[in-house]
Amino acid sequence: MTVKVAVIGAGPAGLAAASRIKKLRPDYHVVVFEKTRWASFALCGTPYYIGGLIDKPEKLMHYPPRFFIEKRGIDLRLIHRVIYIDPDKKILEYEGPGGTGRYEWDVLLIASGARADLPDVPGIDLQGVYKLHHIDDAVLLREKIEGENVKDIVIIGSGYIGLELAENLQRIGKRVIIPTRSKYPLTKLLDPDMGEKLANILREKGLVINYDESLEEIKRKNDRLEIVTSKNTYTADAVIVATGIKPNTEIAEALGLRTGNSGAIIVDSMMKTSRPDIYAAGDNVEVKHVVTDKYTWAPFAQEANKEGYVAGSNIAGKTILFPGVAGTSVTSVKGVVIAGTGLTMKEAYRHGFKPIAAYVEARTKPAYMPGSGKVLLKVIADKKTGLLLGAQAIGGEDAYWRINVVAALLHKRGVVEDLFFTDLGYAPPVNTVWDALVIAGRILLRNW
Amino acid sequence: MTVKVAVIGAGPAGLAAASRIKKLRPDYHVVVFEKTRWASFALCGTPYYIGGLIDKPEKLMHYPPRFFIEKRGIDLRLIHRVIYIDPDKKILEYEGPGGTGRYEWDVLLIASGARADLPDVPGIDLQGVYKLHHIDDAVLLREKIEGENVKDIVIIGSGYIGLELAENLQRIGKRVIIPTRSKYPLTKLLDPDMGEKLANILREKGLVINYDESLEEIKRKNDRLEIVTSKNTYTADAVIVATGIKPNTEIAEALGLRTGNSGAIIVDSMMKTSRPDIYAAGDNVEVKHVVTDKYTWAPFAQEANKEGYVAGSNIAGKTILFPGVAGTSVTSVKGVVIAGTGLTMKEAYRHGFKPIAAYVEARTKPAYMPGSGKVLLKVIADKKTGLLLGAQAIGGEDAYWRINVVAALLHKRGVVEDLFFTDLGYAPPVNTVWDALVIAGRILLRNW
Repeated sequence: MTVKVAVIGAGPAGLAAASRIKKLRPDYHVVVFEKTRWASFALCGTPYYIGGLIDKPEKLMHYPPRFFIEKRGIDLRLIHRVIYIDPDKKILEYEGPGGTGRYEWDVLLIASGARADLPDVPGIDLQGVYKLHHIDDAVLLREKIEGENVKDIVIIGSGYIGLELAENLQRIGKRVIIPTRSKYPLTKLLDPDMGEKLANILREKGLVINYDESLEEIKRKNDRLEIVTSKNTYTADAVIVATGIKPNTEIAEALGLRTGNSGAIIVDSMMKTSRPDIYAAGDNVEVKHVVTDKYTWAPFAQEANKEGYVAGSNIAGKTILFPGVAGTSVTSVKGVVIAGTGLTMKEAYRHGFKPIAAYVEARTKPAYMPGSGKVLLKVIADKKTGLLLGAQAIGGEDAYWRINVVAALLHKRGVVEDLFFTDLGYAPPVNTVWDALVIAGRILLRNW
Repeated sequence: MTVKVAVIGAGPAGLAAASRIKKLRPDYHVVVFEKTRWASFALCGTPYYIGGLIDKPEKLMHYPPRFFIEKRGIDLRLIHRVIYIDPDKKILEYEGPGGTGRYEWDVLLIASGARADLPDVPGIDLQGVYKLHHIDDAVLLREKIEGENVKDIVIIGSGYIGLELAENLQRIGKRVIIPTRSKYPLTKLLDPDMGEKLANILREKGLVINYDESLEEIKRKNDRLEIVTSKNTYTADAVIVATGIKPNTEIAEALGLRTGNSGAIIVDSMMKTSRPDIYAAGDNVEVKHVVTDKYTWAPFAQEANKEGYVAGSNIAGKTILFPGVAGTSVTSVKGVVIAGTGLTMKEAYRHGFKPIAAYVEARTKPAYMPGSGKVLLKVIADKKTGLLLGAQAIGGEDAYWRINVVAALLHKRGVVEDLFFTDLGYAPPVNTVWDALVIAGRILLRNW
């Protein structure tokens, strides 16, 4: 009897899992139900599609749907929405272009992702108000700002998407203002001290971000929009609401799966949910955090891919355990790279640590080398145990890589000595002899 | 009674130690004997001084000598050569501009570094034949190639210094040919397969390197030099011999200290030698390798600094243990960054591992992003245990940083799963969603 696997969602997690299953068990029947017309989508690329670096929306797919069907033998069904699941009888019902149907499965994988989390204010549904989460959002948005007389754009929110959009809209000649509820940009990633530094840098780079203002209402005014916040009123040709995302939770709720604080599905290290033969992976799950060993929601593409890989392996009978995430994230705005991993100070306190921090501002190369720049680095450790807890960096691409080095140490539960003693290479074209990470390690060594 | 510490050598190790001692114990008397007129020298910068990126040789010192004397209270004595040491009576004798003298010490630190390792062939001492290890070598070399009619230069050796010199000499308009005994460039760092790739890249970049030729003789021919190798005869205006370095071993031999295969002094994790109250640090010591747990000679500036820091801490009574080196090293030639850490395949076999390797050629960013390039990465692991053993990379600066991530994992005795699961951040401006390291991890996971 052929084992039948149903996957809900053809994003990174769903297709990584489906591909892995077919690789290990070509005899399995794997059907992937995807409600949109897109598969293998790279949502992180959408701002760059808006900015014209990507010409066609099809290029926001890592591989075309045909690849998964023809090369990998996956029964990929686009524009198919799963409308009912019976977890006991192991059947699901779907709705597609050809009507409704039913599929009996032996194993189910829920990889239904996340969606835009919009504030509940008057006017949020007006024409001219956009969101940017999925590819179709990007297609619609680009069509509108290219086709109409759109010059002034207000972006609500100073998270990753808000900032990346601002850069890309400026690239194509739009005037952008960003009112944000936050006191500084990228509040999920940065502590207030680092956030303030970033705010100053972005201001110097010509980005207008107005902090500590919450959106109250959006109104139509002639052929433009009026955006009312707690402090100001703006007039614009379009509004993009980039106030974050939340996990898709309908299926979890319908099936009574165990969920975490975020509403996302709790999975074990095999990516199994609380019900037998039902797995979940991607932006709709909570997994363990490598530092706290507590469940966390870390909706990042690189983790969705690995979670899918792990789920697929386990479904196909090859056991592999997911060790958890460090929550590493990164963005780049107007040439400034901002990255973080692990816990912020606030999160560290919340998890019962006694965090201490080292802050380093260092040259990235000797002053005489071309391309010598600066990196701002903060590393956080626990005063009691020396355990490394997290790090944040602002600078060039090397800032991002320093954060990846810390992520590797977090993954291995590294302590302050490890940061100091990790043997980072040195040559004048690529670094200084005392790397910023090593200096941070030295400062932390003195303090515990 | 004031504790008296004598340090031999004012390089990175010697001055890091002296600074650390004075920081922890300002009451100690710390005297540093340095045979040259330079202190706190950055020898890795010498090729860039030759290439004119650094205008004055003084800039090859991280801090001027005065800084150590006035700000750190170190009794730094330049142009002072230690000529005799009695390890039982704890005295040393030195020779300086003011004649000879004697110093009674309680603790001795030997940080006498390394020197150029020149082949023993006829003509190696001829005028017009240079080496490049210390700052004075660089001063002399630059003077000669600037001041005389020097156009054609032959560099013997395709290690770090040979390649960096070639780039810098081309930068100032010299014609360079590199005959080398090696079968490919950077043999200490790269396996033959990676070396061959690098050889191809450097050839395309216009560097003439003739492999598998050993130097046999250098002869004067009119006002030029004739360089005879096992395969060719070259004529040049100057020859630079860059055939590697070896540790300075005279003191170790005179004192009968335990030494390793390289001839360098064996030290424990406190940087103590085999004789009481005598420490050593820097390019003249062997320390443990974090992968093999065997002694290794890793004469790299970043480690010399840390070893000095550790020696100084322990001398001043604050115990800190040096965990070992991964042997991480890096260089950059004509825009190509080459980095490695841990063991090569050959070294892995020699240490009794069963090495397997994953080779990945990957984009460094999505193709649509500006600055998207390629990285060639090889990661080596032990087939029996999954232990990560080493890695080599060729590409942009991100190649170097990927090696640093592996170095962090080597430091923590990471295994193949750790490479796959380390949470490297992702955003299109800085990476692809499946980083080359993660792909390498995935390949290795399949093979053990």
